[in-house]
Amino acid sequence: MNAGSVWPTPAAKQRLTPIDASGVEIVGGFWARRQRLNREKTIPHGFGQLQRRGPMDNLRLAAGERGRYQAEADSGGSTFPFLDSDVYKWLEAAGWELARGADAILAAAADEAIGVVAAAQRPDGYLNSFVQVVGGGVPYQDLAWGHEFYCVAHLIQAAVAWRRGLGDDRLLTIAGRAVAHIDAEFGARGRPGIDGHPGIEMALVELARVTGEERHLALAERMLGLRGRGLIGPGRFGPEYWQDHEPVREAATVAGHAVRQLYLDCGAVDAAVELGDEELLTAVRRRWNDLARTRTYLTGGTGSRHRDEAFGDPYELPPDRAYTETCAAIASVMLAWRLLLATGEPEYADAIERAMYNGVLSGLSLTGEEFFYINPLQRRTHRAAEQAGHGRRAPWYPCACCPPNLMRLLSSWHHYLATGDESGVQIHQYADADVTAGGIRLAIRTEYPWQGRVTVRVVQTPDRPWTLALRVPAWSRASTGPVVRHSRQWRAGDSVVLDLEPGIRVTAPDPRADAIRGCVAIERGPLVYCLETVDAPAGTELEDLAWDGGRPPGEVPRPDIEPGVVGIDVPVTHSATPLTAGAIPYFAWANRQVEAMRVWIPT
Amino acid sequence: MNAGSVWPTPAAKQRLTPIDASGVEIVGGFWARRQRLNREKTIPHGFGQLQRRGPMDNLRLAAGERGRYQAEADSGGSTFPFLDSDVYKWLEAAGWELARGADAILAAAADEAIGVVAAAQRPDGYLNSFVQVVGGGVPYQDLAWGHEFYCVAHLIQAAVAWRRGLGDDRLLTIAGRAVAHIDAEFGARGRPGIDGHPGIEMALVELARVTGEERHLALAERMLGLRGRGLIGPGRFGPEYWQDHEPVREAATVAGHAVRQLYLDCGAVDAAVELGDEELLTAVRRRWNDLARTRTYLTGGTGSRHRDEAFGDPYELPPDRAYTETCAAIASVMLAWRLLLATGEPEYADAIERAMYNGVLSGLSLTGEEFFYINPLQRRTHRAAEQAGHGRRAPWYPCACCPPNLMRLLSSWHHYLATGDESGVQIHQYADADVTAGGIRLAIRTEYPWQGRVTVRVVQTPDRPWTLALRVPAWSRASTGPVVRHSRQWRAGDSVVLDLEPGIRVTAPDPRADAIRGCVAIERGPLVYCLETVDAPAGTELEDLAWDGGRPPGEVPRPDIEPGVVGIDVPVTHSATPLTAGAIPYFAWANRQVEAMRVWIPT
Repeated sequence: MNAGSVWPTPAAKQRLTPIDASGVEIVGGFWARRQRLNREKTIPHGFGQLQRRGPMDNLRLAAGERGRYQAEADSGGSTFPFLDSDVYKWLEAAGWELARGADAILAAAADEAIGVVAAAQRPDGYLNSFVQVVGGGVPYQDLAWGHEFYCVAHLIQAAVAWRRGLGDDRLLTIAGRAVAHIDAEFGARGRPGIDGHPGIEMALVELARVTGEERHLALAERMLGLRGRGLIGPGRFGPEYWQDHEPVREAATVAGHAVRQLYLDCGAVDAAVELGDEELLTAVRRRWNDLARTRTYLTGGTGSRHRDEAFGDPYELPPDRAYTETCAAIASVMLAWRLLLATGEPEYADAIERAMYNGVLSGLSLTGEEFFYINPLQRRTHRAAEQAGHGRRAPWYPCACCPPNLMRLLSSWHHYLATGDESGVQIHQYADADVTAGGIRLAIRTEYPWQGRVTVRVVQTPDRPWTLALRVPAWSRASTGPVVRHSRQWRAGDSVVLDLEPGIRVTAPDPRADAIRGCVAIERGPLVYCLETVDAPAGTELEDLAWDGGRPPGEVPRPDIEPGVVGIDVPVTHSATPLTAGAIPYFAWANRQVEAMRVWIPT
Repeated sequence: MNAGSVWPTPAAKQRLTPIDASGVEIVGGFWARRQRLNREKTIPHGFGQLQRRGPMDNLRLAAGERGRYQAEADSGGSTFPFLDSDVYKWLEAAGWELARGADAILAAAADEAIGVVAAAQRPDGYLNSFVQVVGGGVPYQDLAWGHEFYCVAHLIQAAVAWRRGLGDDRLLTIAGRAVAHIDAEFGARGRPGIDGHPGIEMALVELARVTGEERHLALAERMLGLRGRGLIGPGRFGPEYWQDHEPVREAATVAGHAVRQLYLDCGAVDAAVELGDEELLTAVRRRWNDLARTRTYLTGGTGSRHRDEAFGDPYELPPDRAYTETCAAIASVMLAWRLLLATGEPEYADAIERAMYNGVLSGLSLTGEEFFYINPLQRRTHRAAEQAGHGRRAPWYPCACCPPNLMRLLSSWHHYLATGDESGVQIHQYADADVTAGGIRLAIRTEYPWQGRVTVRVVQTPDRPWTLALRVPAWSRASTGPVVRHSRQWRAGDSVVLDLEPGIRVTAPDPRADAIRGCVAIERGPLVYCLETVDAPAGTELEDLAWDGGRPPGEVPRPDIEPGVVGIDVPVTHSATPLTAGAIPYFAWANRQVEAMRVWIPT
């Protein structure tokens, strides 16, 4: 058994069943390139950053070594108490990666990190380097901002990955003791307490799933029930910031800090399917609908406010000041995956696709060693923006939640491609991949996202009829409905071809979205495109170009960006002169000369 | 002698000369109403808030009383070390107000405040309640965020008001000792040090002006010279946040925190005119031009970023997420006034008018007892926005810089109306006012801003020719040039009529301003108008209305808002149905039922 990153129990009430992680292998193309980059560049780079920037040393201090605690404090604000979580997220990525294939150097680095984590844990099970080293040593004094449960949540997720992927329980032992410490104080007979940053809810459900211990599910349920009752206080941004303004099963819309809301709703879905709690699931779906309809950028990113990293009002979607944190896009993928499993509805797979190809991948440089925390849809050239860190990719961040979040998602991305059970296999995302489930073995071959043809060949089949279900992306012109189903008694060697049509689309904004009125965006297949200064006609400024509706855009190979990339030549006018500007996929922006960029082009 | 709030020495190099504050009296109309409201409601309300909310008590604690320091801390962020400044700003307002006319109750309140300030000062002259009570008692340990010089700056400004307006030197004695303490450590032979929040530069120049002591000007010059060299460090928002990225005489554009930049440039102009430093003045003018051209909202407000209260990039002017802090609009008035005096150019008076009638006044409710810190140009109806305090006016704020800033500006607003010298009188702002300068006495009568006629009657004249110069606002259709000059040997009883034409204007946005593309705004005279839900056609939502270019807008009396108000009936369509929506002056928004509002209307 080699379960994936979300693995409901057989009793869970849900429509689709994930495939054992070892049952899906990405063997080539777009995503193989990215998984390889993650393994060979990003994850090693991340370990180096964790070693140099403090997070590993902080845990060593907690283990008794001497030195100065590094909380990456800035001179004006508060210190960060949550840096342990970056070590745990990296360990989760390393776990999935080692499950994909052995690597002695990566394994040694992970062993070192696990050893440090084990040494840092107090004899009573408590584990948080900030509290232990500089926070006075008394746990749970600042649940609102302290991130103690949040850090344990990521420890659990790492432990789950190592158990499921490798059968290695070292982290699971540590996590179990840390959770027991929390449970003793905040469990059914303890005081009420929830974390200012959700996350532990989904982790506890997963912990219950891997250990079979119901009490973890009960603690998750308890924490979900306690939220939304003002327990944390208003803080500096109001109770919506941490979703403490309305009970989880009542709040009609997403609100407050985007990552907090989405992590919370991941936990709510996990608990809902295990408990068969339809009401709770319905509440999350209602919020998702609101999010998808009124507060999601074209890139699948979400969160339009810098001040409190929050969703904005409905249709408050400024392209330039989009916050669209990489972690929020990742969290939306995590939530959509859970909703897809629970409901089987392909719209959630569409959302995963849009976010992955655009708002998630934009957070990672093409070299794999630089990141974006914030992913705007427009940048004007201005030094101030660069100095404030909104224009240039960085090798790491003082608050480095996003880089290891990208690592763990990419290292487990194959989990998200397909589901399967006795009735057959459902393919949700397209990649060159081999899929094995329930005696069925498929070879999927495609040049997606650059070309629309997907060939699924049956390599092995059981001796009974089953159904192959293929998602048709919402953007495809094919009038087939959202899913194509082939049901038959298959034979080895059979194959099915799905021809999607990734033609160029000129997308008009919702008229209620004020900030992008009078503009269009260019899309092709699952990809959103953008203009960058370096591809603008010579002698023009990006801000002076307008869309020329009288001429059609055209496809053009852009191997200068990356092998296989299809660029788009965009017809524009500059002072009434017809010119052409080169558009590239949004995820690839800010990898060359860094100047202006825009997704939405004035008409 | 009863000098105004900016009073250059005779040696200063500047074009216009302010009029002794007692030489201008607003006697009726729009601004008399607002000065009366300020005196009778806002200033007494402010004293009550200062008493109840901590600032007065904090100074009492510094004076030795016992109690808990109230820094209006929020549970997640840092405590505010700058609340003393609110007491000083209030005292400045009270000083100007008492100079306008005696008031025993106001005088008693001010005496109490002055007594508390005096008692709080340490024997060595140091004065800052935060450092003295909760900050460990050691001065100047955190120049970046501590606001110690900033607080002394406002103490100086209050002291200057009390000296100039009332000849009362109690505060001047206190301020002089506080400055001496700073000078001893940071003066010419001391260590280099500048405050993270500029302000003391202009205060020191004014202190030099009232005391005749050159060393204060020298300290201001030193601090201006030290800024822009990385002395403060990057902080959490980068060195531009506090204008420490480029030297004051080199920076080409405004940058960072809006109020910090504008206060800094006020000090730079003050020093430049006293020192005859043309290069420094030119640098400020260059920044002003950039600000006016690329980063100023239609309302005269400035600053488009919530996160760091900063100017955005050029043309980054989102109406919904406009930060446009009331203090920034006030600071722009302070800077434009200094530039007007220095250069004589009427564009600066135009800027004062636009900011005062729109972005400044919007910060104050029509009742005079509620405020806006943030002044957006659009609000969608959403509970989250209200909870975050962006939708409803508040009686005070944890960071209450804006309310007493409004008080001191309104109590000294008559200073800004006119200048005069041997050559005559220059009228920059129109109000029912009596002006006396250099033997000339004028009675200005007008129903401005509602009507455009201004009558200036000569009540008294010296026996020599002189020139009456009248600014023609940039918005007036009259093709007269920006200033009308009448030069002659005047006789008492002579009068001049200026007929401005405050017709309705339909204003298109700059095409480079992305966030308001495809919209128009309504203006009339100096006023920007807005739509509010309460004036939308029955059964419609503001967000569903579009401008109907086929029908003209019309004027309509709106005494329901305030006597004399001219409203505008705006032709709109709703699902192709022609309807009419009522627009009111922007400054009056959010005084009735609080729902949606917008200045820019989609076409």
